[in-house]
Amino acid sequence: MTDTPAARQRHRVVIIGSGFGGLFGAQRLAHADVDVTLVARTTHHLFQPLLYQVATGILSEGEIAPATREVLAHQQNAEVLLGEVTKIDLEARTVTHTAVGRDTVTEYDSLIVAAGAGQSYFGNDRFARYAPGMKSIDDALELRGRIFGSFELAELASTPAEIQRLMTFVVVGAGPTGVEMAGQIAELAHRTLKRDFRRIDPANSRIILLDAAPAVLPSFGERLGSRAQAKLREMGVEVRLGAKVVGVDSTGIEVEHGDGTHERIEAVCKVWAAGVSASPLGVQLAEQSGAELDRAGRVLVQPDLTLPGRPEVFVIGDMMALDRLPGVAQVAIQGARYAADQITRRVAAEPPLGPFHYRDKGSMATISRFSAVVSIGKFQSSGFFAWVMWLAVHLVYIIGFKHRITTLLHWAISFLGRGRAERVMTQQQVFARTAIEDLGESFDPQLPRVPGDRPAS
Amino acid sequence: MTDTPAARQRHRVVIIGSGFGGLFGAQRLAHADVDVTLVARTTHHLFQPLLYQVATGILSEGEIAPATREVLAHQQNAEVLLGEVTKIDLEARTVTHTAVGRDTVTEYDSLIVAAGAGQSYFGNDRFARYAPGMKSIDDALELRGRIFGSFELAELASTPAEIQRLMTFVVVGAGPTGVEMAGQIAELAHRTLKRDFRRIDPANSRIILLDAAPAVLPSFGERLGSRAQAKLREMGVEVRLGAKVVGVDSTGIEVEHGDGTHERIEAVCKVWAAGVSASPLGVQLAEQSGAELDRAGRVLVQPDLTLPGRPEVFVIGDMMALDRLPGVAQVAIQGARYAADQITRRVAAEPPLGPFHYRDKGSMATISRFSAVVSIGKFQSSGFFAWVMWLAVHLVYIIGFKHRITTLLHWAISFLGRGRAERVMTQQQVFARTAIEDLGESFDPQLPRVPGDRPAS
Repeated sequence: MTDTPAARQRHRVVIIGSGFGGLFGAQRLAHADVDVTLVARTTHHLFQPLLYQVATGILSEGEIAPATREVLAHQQNAEVLLGEVTKIDLEARTVTHTAVGRDTVTEYDSLIVAAGAGQSYFGNDRFARYAPGMKSIDDALELRGRIFGSFELAELASTPAEIQRLMTFVVVGAGPTGVEMAGQIAELAHRTLKRDFRRIDPANSRIILLDAAPAVLPSFGERLGSRAQAKLREMGVEVRLGAKVVGVDSTGIEVEHGDGTHERIEAVCKVWAAGVSASPLGVQLAEQSGAELDRAGRVLVQPDLTLPGRPEVFVIGDMMALDRLPGVAQVAIQGARYAADQITRRVAAEPPLGPFHYRDKGSMATISRFSAVVSIGKFQSSGFFAWVMWLAVHLVYIIGFKHRITTLLHWAISFLGRGRAERVMTQQQVFARTAIEDLGESFDPQLPRVPGDRPAS
Repeated sequence: MTDTPAARQRHRVVIIGSGFGGLFGAQRLAHADVDVTLVARTTHHLFQPLLYQVATGILSEGEIAPATREVLAHQQNAEVLLGEVTKIDLEARTVTHTAVGRDTVTEYDSLIVAAGAGQSYFGNDRFARYAPGMKSIDDALELRGRIFGSFELAELASTPAEIQRLMTFVVVGAGPTGVEMAGQIAELAHRTLKRDFRRIDPANSRIILLDAAPAVLPSFGERLGSRAQAKLREMGVEVRLGAKVVGVDSTGIEVEHGDGTHERIEAVCKVWAAGVSASPLGVQLAEQSGAELDRAGRVLVQPDLTLPGRPEVFVIGDMMALDRLPGVAQVAIQGARYAADQITRRVAAEPPLGPFHYRDKGSMATISRFSAVVSIGKFQSSGFFAWVMWLAVHLVYIIGFKHRITTLLHWAISFLGRGRAERVMTQQQVFARTAIEDLGESFDPQLPRVPGDRPAS
């Protein structure tokens, strides 16, 4: 509590968020003459690209979410505080964060805002209850419970319609997360659960991947997109493009096709991997600095990633809008390092860096075990070789030696064998959070449906 | 849904529960001429002796809780159904079980009731909110959130009293689970978290192990009990014996000492590892068969583990009262195998086995890494050698090859290194289930306390 005079003199950097931007920013400041305070509302750093593997029972949550303070334990100039930031005061240079109902105010000399993005339901937030997103460990565990739980309930169901509805899985959004989820649910149904049931055959599951856009993995280009689509079809995933979701309720989903016709798909388990909206903190930053927000709520930053008139405030990662850069880990990491270097130079009274330039390191997505797509500049690859690249890159990036080994083992179990080491559903997942009334209702066809707001079709 | 005539003719065995009794009973019937239906309210088998390692961040839930249907996938005569048994009708020979609000009735020819035991608060169920038990994965994850969360909140706290209260951990019950929990929390505080915090020093934590009885690990005998107690003291655990808990609230716990004096211990995080009470299904069995129940709600069975006048109904494991046998895994496993063998003989028209005889394979408990106590008949050992025995036995018993390897690795991380691979708290754990109001309240000393029912002292 009592700062030494020396500590008080140092330049104070506050970082909001423990994602790729927040964590890599803090680490980049390890040797700078600054004190770093990282404030985040979770106690872990989330390796989001592998969240779908937690949702489908391959990895444990610990394997993709090391404790932030453990990662930074040896960085003496960094501290980690649990708290949700509720207020940023650019004038007073303070951040207010709250944990279990109590506010703490932390002062800064430089601020890096890396609070990321949440799921967007495009104005239909009531969909969230019926189609959880894929943004947090809680989301992944919730979906794990729903996916495995659907098969459990199908085993108990008594009518063919009920069984079919429980064995139909709809993934909304054909970006990397949606493609990976659909591929993994297909693997679950066709391989993992092959011998687990007696009354149903999991291979009869329907896995449907929906997107309003006309292509799968549009950011990978047309060639890789159609390869991915072909591979998904081969795996038994029904790909429906140009299909806009207009209604979601406990027992199904309603889509509008390009020709204006409506279709209802009966499905208990829905996954929302469609839109993102930036942290609401962007609104405060915009109001106080005059910066503009784009449609997804991202802050339009200056070429040096700062707010207009506020050179001490950086906005990076999924919260930042600049040059149409995508919301991927590399943009956050490179932005974080740029901001950290800029602060380091300022504190050392060195000349500032030029504008931020993003170096595209390419992107990759797995379709199934042994099959991925990779796009690095002009280099494009799909299939097994791309999958080996995916494996190598992800192993290197997973933070912490220990996680790499157990992760490799869990992958061996799932990719070479048939098993899933992490299938646990807690009572919370099975009963509490999935809302008994929802499942109970969908489970019994006699009960009336939740009306939702489906347009009369 | 449509049984073949051949299937219909087979003897139907229903097993209630997926613990040691239920699972080992089902496996023992693999080659019997019967159809087995295992009904359980969780989808996993829980390796309960290692639950404390999930609560303290060493293992993931998947490592100690394989999916029951995965374990039984290759046993063609067994099926697994998710459901909580609400009714047993001994006359009609049916079991009614419910999942997400719908009842299913399953008929049996033989029944093995292995529904286990829950935590007992000795009539003070309101303690549960403030001091979670150690009986399920949900319990362990809840406690994981509370233990790690207490340190997170201490780092944010502003008064010495508040910090002390958040860094005081009380474990109630000095049996194996309580001793193991207390030992692991001490390791967390003194080793794992050593470098993780900047404002608090986790080594200043107080870990208090309470029991109303006069000894630690009474089932291990006086010599091993006092060795364990000495080792715990050496590790910084305060052992308080002859201390009966008379009140628990959000900020502390109140005990009554042997001399009648009362003491209040300020502590936010409390763990209840004290009593067990058998499944309430025992009451139904007793009412319908005339069997008696003991104080812990266990059913007094015949020498062949059946109910009086109901030779087709076996009650085993923690639900069974016979010859003062303890509620340990080996009693459940041996009882399950006996019941399965008895059923197999009956179906094959072979003469029945004689009365059940328990073969004591000994018991063991870890105190810390590299230190355990082991008692096998007259053989007693404590320290490193006992710990190696503990390690070997637990590795062999953990079900499934894959879990063994990752478990070994996680143990290497925690025992040889300092890390904990599984420290994730979900939002549910941190905020929802620990009840914001409780922590918020304990977090701010100005707010009034929950009165609880503490006697005026």
